[in-house]
Amino acid sequence: MYKINTNFQKLPGSYLFSTIAAKVSAFAEANPQADIIRLGIGDVTQPIAPAIIEAMHCAVDEMADAATFRGYAPDLGYDFLRNAIAEQDYQKRGCDISADEIFVSDGAKSDSGNIQELFSEDNRIAVCDPVYPVYIDSNVMAGRTGNYNEATGMFDGVTYMPCTAENGFVPEFPKEAPDLIYLCLPNNPTGTTLKKGQLQEWVDYARKNGAVIIYDAAYEAYISEDDVAHSIYECDGAKSCAIEIRSFSKNAGFTGVRLGFTVVPKELACGGVSLHAMWARRHGTKFNGAPYLIQRAGEAVYSPEGRRQVAEQVAYYMKNAATIYNGLKDAGYEVYGGINAPYIWLRTPDGMSSWEFFDYLLEKANIVGTPGCGFGPSGEGYFRLTAFGSHENSVRALERIKAL
Amino acid sequence: MYKINTNFQKLPGSYLFSTIAAKVSAFAEANPQADIIRLGIGDVTQPIAPAIIEAMHCAVDEMADAATFRGYAPDLGYDFLRNAIAEQDYQKRGCDISADEIFVSDGAKSDSGNIQELFSEDNRIAVCDPVYPVYIDSNVMAGRTGNYNEATGMFDGVTYMPCTAENGFVPEFPKEAPDLIYLCLPNNPTGTTLKKGQLQEWVDYARKNGAVIIYDAAYEAYISEDDVAHSIYECDGAKSCAIEIRSFSKNAGFTGVRLGFTVVPKELACGGVSLHAMWARRHGTKFNGAPYLIQRAGEAVYSPEGRRQVAEQVAYYMKNAATIYNGLKDAGYEVYGGINAPYIWLRTPDGMSSWEFFDYLLEKANIVGTPGCGFGPSGEGYFRLTAFGSHENSVRALERIKAL
Repeated sequence: MYKINTNFQKLPGSYLFSTIAAKVSAFAEANPQADIIRLGIGDVTQPIAPAIIEAMHCAVDEMADAATFRGYAPDLGYDFLRNAIAEQDYQKRGCDISADEIFVSDGAKSDSGNIQELFSEDNRIAVCDPVYPVYIDSNVMAGRTGNYNEATGMFDGVTYMPCTAENGFVPEFPKEAPDLIYLCLPNNPTGTTLKKGQLQEWVDYARKNGAVIIYDAAYEAYISEDDVAHSIYECDGAKSCAIEIRSFSKNAGFTGVRLGFTVVPKELACGGVSLHAMWARRHGTKFNGAPYLIQRAGEAVYSPEGRRQVAEQVAYYMKNAATIYNGLKDAGYEVYGGINAPYIWLRTPDGMSSWEFFDYLLEKANIVGTPGCGFGPSGEGYFRLTAFGSHENSVRALERIKAL
Repeated sequence: MYKINTNFQKLPGSYLFSTIAAKVSAFAEANPQADIIRLGIGDVTQPIAPAIIEAMHCAVDEMADAATFRGYAPDLGYDFLRNAIAEQDYQKRGCDISADEIFVSDGAKSDSGNIQELFSEDNRIAVCDPVYPVYIDSNVMAGRTGNYNEATGMFDGVTYMPCTAENGFVPEFPKEAPDLIYLCLPNNPTGTTLKKGQLQEWVDYARKNGAVIIYDAAYEAYISEDDVAHSIYECDGAKSCAIEIRSFSKNAGFTGVRLGFTVVPKELACGGVSLHAMWARRHGTKFNGAPYLIQRAGEAVYSPEGRRQVAEQVAYYMKNAATIYNGLKDAGYEVYGGINAPYIWLRTPDGMSSWEFFDYLLEKANIVGTPGCGFGPSGEGYFRLTAFGSHENSVRALERIKAL
């Protein structure tokens, strides 16, 4: 008789954003007249930039002609895209990353969830708290954690690094060194970044303790301050201890287009076994490459027109971030983030819990946000709003909040 | 100090098709004048059908306009596609499968590799031998097998079901019942199918022994005989014991477009735990939906024009299959497959090993095929040619083989 993977049953309830979607659906059904403004899930709203649209049309036409048709893509990505990434995201910033260290995928979420497969089941993971739920959930499914503890909101066997207003949302080094350290910077949901010197300390810590850093830089394009690293490979020694994951979702609006990549440096090895080779094998066995036309779309992001156009979109969203940030401040809220990230992180008023504030905001202002506790127990008492709505809606949302 | 997943090291060498690609590259470099005909990897060559191209252009245009832009897709797939699949692939054939039992993905390879995550690590798998290597390799990586045995070409702890000319390439029921049974029908690489009655026996066997069948029907569109099931759900009781995986790669030429789906019936459960819910959770946590425009491409496969056009492509490839099959027969080879599948499976001549014949064919005829042993030890002494080349190349390849 077959048996299931019982680790799945350790996961409490459903994935955060599925829960929110269900709650919003129920509210919308009960209140069909409500004009709901969605600043919850981090989904973009601006259309794909013209240079990228043009590239996709061209690629679709190529697929229509036997002479230019493309079948299976190279497992690890087309050279035209890997070269553009290596050059513009890394070499231009002084990071010594080559094209063949870049693994193109269908998105940062898949890579964030799958990367743990390279590691032993008994490795101990450390995560910022609060953080994007995929890091922990994918490790739970793989059996790398103990049970969920209802009282604490934590999984046994996981090192949580609390990030709250009290420590400026900066994680502290765990006393007992973990094996895998997930860092998401700029952080989702708090919007925090580390200064380059602070990030170097994490690289040094990882090297000293034989840990690997899984560095999720999905929001890199939103960095506006000068002394913040855009890639972990700006730090000395990072190539021997860090894997970096990037997304096209937030810089180029690819949430529905699906494209991302992961950098696994060739010098990252454990006991002589190359993690680069392992990830290549994983890609070759359980993935079949990102669609040709989507990779052409990705390439267009790096063209001169593409770069200009996506920079405008990022600026548009950052204007929203400022609107939301300043509006909340004016309304008397305690607000964080929004400077180097498209997320605004606020403390819930009057000691409300995160979900209480979620319901309050949905019912009283018809605004959807994300309860902070959904990102980890230290997110309790906080709430996330995203800058990815339209500017008009961002303005309207803040008017409603101010009027509460 | 972190540790790696040492199961990866059990995998011998590289993925079969990567090895072939490397050998062909080396040959092409050494023989730049050689006019190589590739009938190795199962990659299609016909361009995407016009109805599908049109749908993709439309969807690209929708992404260019804020009013019609689509961000994150529903994790499990858009209803327009799930409905089309449920209706046309299942309900029309009398299979009681509903749209919400269909999980849209980026392809059958990913699903084939990932589906094992739902099961306990100590479940025993059974595979046809020879077969598509992903089933075993993904289980090796997950620690569900023992070590690789060089002498036998088998992994310890796996039940191999030999399929050779001696048993008509039909697997026999294992004496000791396994927990997970992978069936690929029509089979890759042998091209064998089971009659509906034979498939019903497998469903009965699985139900009696508490096993789950992972049914890979990627080549369903190539079935030409009447008494062959197109879906395992044509069999009584299959909904309580079978998961079916389908691809758009071979019926609609989507190898470079990437789209597939998996059916997990709601009644498939183990000790009250729904595998449908588990797969939904896996999709929601580690995958972010297939691209909107690719799902529109998939929908177009089911339109009246789309269906007609893709049927023409399948017929085109099946004409190649007949050319290769008959040509090999004329040349005195012992040949199988090619009737309900785009694969021709031949016995290597003069007792040559599979790799010897690979080298012989590459060097003497400049034709790339796939060594049978790459699909499992019982594939030794056999060789696979695919019908996915152009018709002209299929004819030319056979002329060369006849001239050897």
